[in-house]
Amino acid sequence: METSVKEGNGKEWVKKAAIGRAAATLFEKKGYLETSLKDISEAAKLSKGCIYYYFSSKHEILYFILDVYMDHLLEGLEDELRGKPDICSKIQFIMHRHLSLYNNKIPEAKAILTDAHNLPYEYYRLIALKQKKYSQVLADVLSDYFDGEMQMNKAKAISYVVFGMCNSIMHWHDPEGPITLEELSEICFSLFTGGIRQLKTNQAVNA
Amino acid sequence: METSVKEGNGKEWVKKAAIGRAAATLFEKKGYLETSLKDISEAAKLSKGCIYYYFSSKHEILYFILDVYMDHLLEGLEDELRGKPDICSKIQFIMHRHLSLYNNKIPEAKAILTDAHNLPYEYYRLIALKQKKYSQVLADVLSDYFDGEMQMNKAKAISYVVFGMCNSIMHWHDPEGPITLEELSEICFSLFTGGIRQLKTNQAVNA
Repeated sequence: METSVKEGNGKEWVKKAAIGRAAATLFEKKGYLETSLKDISEAAKLSKGCIYYYFSSKHEILYFILDVYMDHLLEGLEDELRGKPDICSKIQFIMHRHLSLYNNKIPEAKAILTDAHNLPYEYYRLIALKQKKYSQVLADVLSDYFDGEMQMNKAKAISYVVFGMCNSIMHWHDPEGPITLEELSEICFSLFTGGIRQLKTNQAVNA
Repeated sequence: METSVKEGNGKEWVKKAAIGRAAATLFEKKGYLETSLKDISEAAKLSKGCIYYYFSSKHEILYFILDVYMDHLLEGLEDELRGKPDICSKIQFIMHRHLSLYNNKIPEAKAILTDAHNLPYEYYRLIALKQKKYSQVLADVLSDYFDGEMQMNKAKAISYVVFGMCNSIMHWHDPEGPITLEELSEICFSLFTGGIRQLKTNQAVNA
């Protein structure tokens, strides 16, 4: 579990990233449970011995994939947000960033949604902690949007609902189909911005 | 695969429904792949022979659960919609109905999301067809909402996004937690109604 993105970007990192990519692609195609270390070694064009040099089990590869994905989501996010002029730009930035990372790393993003529960609990917990930290960033921005008048629990719930909306796309979107991911991002963004405006209005009415 | 909700509401149906309920509850707790027919027979308090009298395999039980759930979603929906006075009431009705069925049948609803892909293709296809028919109902209402000026593909995509938003709640909502399902339904409904208003405004601006 000590293997993490922070170990550096040298030769070892490149190998691990290549194994992770091959594995994530197989998990998406065949399913996590149905994929063997042999399948992964063939897809990564590396010997099984080489795979075992970097990872002690399939779980460790899955953990590596999810951990790196979460780090990509988290890294620099708060700094970048500080540079945005207002709350609406912050919200727009978070959504576009979320969907564009998904678009660049579809197998990894799908692994988060469909395979994370296959991790042993102590690994799963670490991923879940990063997910909580990530949605807290949106919850904080939302709390500002609602002038701090919304309970943090509710702001958190909204951030979960919004990420849930974006993530659900992965279950059905066909890149070859009639709707592009860009169009979908716009739909999600409009639904969300119009949606929170409505929530703010409700709040004002109920105040 | 011939076993369906339509077979009647007699003694046989009651037995099958009890087996389905016990199985769905186990799938939620242990996972579909990890649940055996023996587990199901113990939970349903029926002999394995009795289970085999009604279902020839675990797949058939899963198919039965999902098929019945989809029938509940579909049955009477269009008739009930015809009785609603305007488009907004129709949309509100679909969302509340969707979330309240989920609330009453959590294990079955979760099985649709997490286990459907375990079905053999010919069974899966039948469930997917009912899912398409179901989201088409919302897509048709949305198409009316947008005065028929939105491409049907886009209206379909919005209906998928909306159901995805509602369904994603199942992955994290804790009935013992600080936010009730009623509060979440309201959040989803406000996000959605505010959201489509925004989409309509965008459409008017781009026209």
